[in-house]
Amino acid sequence: MAVGTLATVKALDPDDLRSAGAQMILSNAYHLHLRPGDELVRDMGGLHRFMAWDGPILTDSGGFQVFSLAALRTVDEDGVEFRSHIDGSTRRFTAESVMQIERNLGADVIMQFDHVIPGQSEAAVARDASERSIRWLARCRTAFERIEPVHGAPQALFPIVQGGIHEDLRVEAARKIKDMHDWPGFGIGGLSVGEAKPDMYRILDCLHEVLPDARPRYLMGVGFPEDLVEGVARGVDLFDCVAPTRMGRNGAAFTNDGRINIKNAGFRVDRGPLDEGCTCGACSRFTRAYIRHLFVADEMLGMRLLSLHNVHFLVALMRAARDAIKSRTFDAWSRQWLERYHSRSQPDE
Amino acid sequence: MAVGTLATVKALDPDDLRSAGAQMILSNAYHLHLRPGDELVRDMGGLHRFMAWDGPILTDSGGFQVFSLAALRTVDEDGVEFRSHIDGSTRRFTAESVMQIERNLGADVIMQFDHVIPGQSEAAVARDASERSIRWLARCRTAFERIEPVHGAPQALFPIVQGGIHEDLRVEAARKIKDMHDWPGFGIGGLSVGEAKPDMYRILDCLHEVLPDARPRYLMGVGFPEDLVEGVARGVDLFDCVAPTRMGRNGAAFTNDGRINIKNAGFRVDRGPLDEGCTCGACSRFTRAYIRHLFVADEMLGMRLLSLHNVHFLVALMRAARDAIKSRTFDAWSRQWLERYHSRSQPDE
Repeated sequence: MAVGTLATVKALDPDDLRSAGAQMILSNAYHLHLRPGDELVRDMGGLHRFMAWDGPILTDSGGFQVFSLAALRTVDEDGVEFRSHIDGSTRRFTAESVMQIERNLGADVIMQFDHVIPGQSEAAVARDASERSIRWLARCRTAFERIEPVHGAPQALFPIVQGGIHEDLRVEAARKIKDMHDWPGFGIGGLSVGEAKPDMYRILDCLHEVLPDARPRYLMGVGFPEDLVEGVARGVDLFDCVAPTRMGRNGAAFTNDGRINIKNAGFRVDRGPLDEGCTCGACSRFTRAYIRHLFVADEMLGMRLLSLHNVHFLVALMRAARDAIKSRTFDAWSRQWLERYHSRSQPDE
Repeated sequence: MAVGTLATVKALDPDDLRSAGAQMILSNAYHLHLRPGDELVRDMGGLHRFMAWDGPILTDSGGFQVFSLAALRTVDEDGVEFRSHIDGSTRRFTAESVMQIERNLGADVIMQFDHVIPGQSEAAVARDASERSIRWLARCRTAFERIEPVHGAPQALFPIVQGGIHEDLRVEAARKIKDMHDWPGFGIGGLSVGEAKPDMYRILDCLHEVLPDARPRYLMGVGFPEDLVEGVARGVDLFDCVAPTRMGRNGAAFTNDGRINIKNAGFRVDRGPLDEGCTCGACSRFTRAYIRHLFVADEMLGMRLLSLHNVHFLVALMRAARDAIKSRTFDAWSRQWLERYHSRSQPDE
């Protein structure tokens, strides 16, 4: 999923996203509640109409902001009180209020309100947050069933498995959640929040055994190209990450030979596309030299072209992974792909 | 012409421009000489290939920068020495060097190197700059004929009529230039540089009599919607101005009922398009409320949508003017259009 936190995927428009092959967009209940307000979006016909995107949309609940805006909030059993990062006003989020916000927005998939903690949290902290998230899930479900869909179309409520980097907590949480209800899909939260990569892979491995095969699994906030391939290898179906657009705005492009920074002087007279063989709207029209010029001259089109390319790259990568799964060659394909990508990539910035 | 000073029309890509109906783009020899360098553009196959625009391009010569960067340059009979506004390095521009730069860039129409002065300059100053511009024109023509087109395709060299707000100087300059050569078109420079609007209209009226009917006339750096209509009424065929994109980036949209600022709170829940009846890529997809949200949230897509709309608006306005001329109803059409536009427009910002 391309990330459109504020009802727009930064630097791109819906036609760009379609041309990049994007199928689904993620947006954010916390941010849209603050700006422009979920009731305004509701009055404008819901998120699809507001942002002119007729494909699927998923809204995250604000649980991630419990982690990312930790300095601006207090958590209690009832919910979370945020000091708005925009105007300092106080906003209380609860399981019930978040369900109302997500009903107002009208995304196709809506996430439960959960309690996200830092990746390295010790077991007691992780257990506390995980168990609270499960209690909130029960309240979310009750509220979700009580509040009618605002825009007619049905919505799917996804639970989120928490439990930090502790395998026993993760398995316990997954089992409890699975036993509560026949959920249409499962979020895996609280990863890619500061823990080491091997810890993330270990947790995905242990959840792979527990979560039902026939339901999509969404690894939240992940990730980079290599994370997607590693995640698919561990049974993940859905991802979201700001990386393609955020890195694109900073001049970084994904290629099958690793990541490049287009601002480097070496691209000054480079007649090639960002990535050889790529068919995106940037690579099919513009040279590296031109896109470098746009960045050097601080021209907005540069950010748009790299964002477009990076989204296209991740979508194409997932398509290749699906093809490899269908032809039962995923293990060999993923090993080769990761080897090539890692061997040529520049160190992480 | 949409303005793409640095080989990109700010916030837009070539497909956006085509969808807005834009036919021709203006770029700038001074700016491209500094960044990325006209020799680099030459080596990349010329401006059309570099920026992926296969329609006509016109390059201005740097004469306008003699005016706009006055604090950074000294003029002598040979040419102009600029201190680069980017890195402070010294760059000498002459009739001959500018022709080489514009040959390297390879635009379809290239402007002579001229000496632009402030709009309110007195007659002696205006005469001095106008006569120097005519001497530079002769040198430009010699150099233009000596240097072969770099990219194969022929280029048209346009002279520029100067003379400030002094009718006698303007008529004298136009006659001298006309007598030198059968030029493929004529630039009218040194207007919209600080003089009053009635002065500009007066100068256009007096040149209307003198310039040949069968050659396009290009009023440089103009303008706003009302200026285009007033210019067409005085025989002008070509215009360029940063207004549609610069104002678009600041939140202003042209409409047939005057200019609006989309950031105004009144548009918060406005379900209408920017301009009723407009078929541009912004109006056909998005509401005023959504575009206002993009500006309030500082999202790049807002700037792109308003730039797209404003370029589309000016192109559609010129199409309407052409239709009115063909059907011999221009006087009535322009009177009505100006009346409606002025009566509802907000005062200039």
